[in-house]
Amino acid sequence: MIMLGIGAVAQAADIAAGRAKSGTCVACHGPDGISHNPAWPNLAGQKDQYLIRQLRAFRDGDREDPIMGPMAQGLSDADIEDLAAYYSNLPPGGK
Amino acid sequence: MIMLGIGAVAQAADIAAGRAKSGTCVACHGPDGISHNPAWPNLAGQKDQYLIRQLRAFRDGDREDPIMGPMAQGLSDADIEDLAAYYSNLPPGGK
Repeated sequence: MIMLGIGAVAQAADIAAGRAKSGTCVACHGPDGISHNPAWPNLAGQKDQYLIRQLRAFRDGDREDPIMGPMAQGLSDADIEDLAAYYSNLPPGGK
Repeated sequence: MIMLGIGAVAQAADIAAGRAKSGTCVACHGPDGISHNPAWPNLAGQKDQYLIRQLRAFRDGDREDPIMGPMAQGLSDADIEDLAAYYSNLPPGGK
């Protein structure tokens, strides 16, 4: 019972932290994770492990993109996990 | 009026063609464009131009992935546009 409670709190904290760190993402991916440009992907409701893998790949140079490469440079693994928790929990299709 | 009618028919044909070509995508990305593995992305409702750009990148080796690279090898530009039309028009979040 106690472990379940701790787990739930930890997940909520990650999502809130991700939201707090998403300020620079909003310009392209939208305030609700829905991009306003058809060339940029929606993130709302996307799979969390996929988002983590792609952000790491952008940061580490394994996936090259002139916009996302520099964006991901300063992210720690914890930042990436928080952002993935936040975007994967947004409603698919937007508000 | 006539051009509008032709345009509507052409768009519908692309979506139907994309669905017909999506047989090998379903195993990983789900019958409704929702992946059953958190490491693989949902495609339902994703931006069409983004999907086109990524499929071309996988095909042409600009985005490297051991699964998607071989998958995209045989796709023509028309195949890619049809698949993007199909997946971008699926309901976000699944059925």
